Amino acid sequence: MLLYVVLVESALELVPQQLWGERCVLSSAKNKGKHPSQILLDRSLHHTAMLKLKDGLRRGRPDLVHQAVLTVTGTPAYLRGEVKLYIHTYTNLVIEVVEGTRLPKSYFRFQGLMEKVLSGQEEEKLIRVEKIGFKELIDRIGAETVIGFSRRGVLMKPEEWVSKYVREKSVLAIGGFPRGGFSQEVLKRLHAVVSIHEMPLESHVVLARVIYDYERFRRQISPL
Amino acid sequence: MLLYVVLVESALELVPQQLWGERCVLSSAKNKGKHPSQILLDRSLHHTAMLKLKDGLRRGRPDLVHQAVLTVTGTPAYLRGEVKLYIHTYTNLVIEVVEGTRLPKSYFRFQGLMEKVLSGQEEEKLIRVEKIGFKELIDRIGAETVIGFSRRGVLMKPEEWVSKYVREKSVLAIGGFPRGGFSQEVLKRLHAVVSIHEMPLESHVVLARVIYDYERFRRQISPL
Repeated sequence: MLLYVVLVESALELVPQQLWGERCVLSSAKNKGKHPSQILLDRSLHHTAMLKLKDGLRRGRPDLVHQAVLTVTGTPAYLRGEVKLYIHTYTNLVIEVVEGTRLPKSYFRFQGLMEKVLSGQEEEKLIRVEKIGFKELIDRIGAETVIGFSRRGVLMKPEEWVSKYVREKSVLAIGGFPRGGFSQEVLKRLHAVVSIHEMPLESHVVLARVIYDYERFRRQISPL
Repeated sequence: MLLYVVLVESALELVPQQLWGERCVLSSAKNKGKHPSQILLDRSLHHTAMLKLKDGLRRGRPDLVHQAVLTVTGTPAYLRGEVKLYIHTYTNLVIEVVEGTRLPKSYFRFQGLMEKVLSGQEEEKLIRVEKIGFKELIDRIGAETVIGFSRRGVLMKPEEWVSKYVREKSVLAIGGFPRGGFSQEVLKRLHAVVSIHEMPLESHVVLARVIYDYERFRRQISPL
């Protein structure tokens, strides 16, 4: 029994071509001795340029993705090899993390690794990137259920959503973006949208809680 | 009812004088245009120099402290102003975070803020630093119980430790260091040492779980 955790529409991407000529982009690329196409889009550095970007408020938050990733990879379920992590991005790339792989805890190193992986500069054995969308990823996993977590979903207790929706092969889908809900493209693929709290919570908080809930209640999962 | 969360003996400090002359320290200080005394000790940059340091393996992990802090400040209890966070450091400083304050999510900004605060360069209204130890902090809080979490503690279920040890005014103490247990100095002040899992877990994972447990079970807290 493997749990699939997918960070959905994550705010992780290289600087798009439209912004290569922007002053703040050029300056942060120069600081790193790289071309603008090889650095991560980052709101804390490229805020002004990002105002011109479509969906700018949902993009360029590698810090948030890093925090979410570390939250998943620190859990007992992940450490035991019982969780498979995918990062689906805003631009429809899917980063597959081989089971049990620990990603860098230092933000600098995470940033460097993602820049290499997304630029295709380095073949990483433990991390693979593919140009596929959320639908294709779900098809490939072949999950029996796909459970999305969103404040806009139905408020449910942990034992309730685990027993109702988790099967032998299930996906937990959590937004990897700083605000807003899932796109229609993603919503169409979800079997249920669950809210775990009446307050809006950050992705890493939701991840920490739903994986803990899963660990606590999976014994109650109904057989098929 | 306020819950006090203390990160204990945290691996967060400015580069100590002993290492100011080290090549890797000088180079990272120069990159930032600062004096070595004004930058954070960081294993990912100062590994070689840190081999000479007493307790080197337990120090210089500001990334770990950042991750732990964000885990706490993202919880519903913290967002509602029901949690007060303190960062006690290896060098016996205590950083007090005013209730409800959000610390920077970007690691760069967190680093910059901590460098300013620890250097005393900037008076921060929302973050106060004092040169006091764990004992003094506990005395000042005047907590009824101080509950430490450590793999070396007694394995207990959440409902068990919450109902047994949490009172109107309690401290949850979690190590802010990458390895090893609490020092004797800290152990002496704990009323109980609880283990939440048979596996060794990172501080942020423990924090996410114990605050969630606290939120779920605090209704069961026995009256004094």
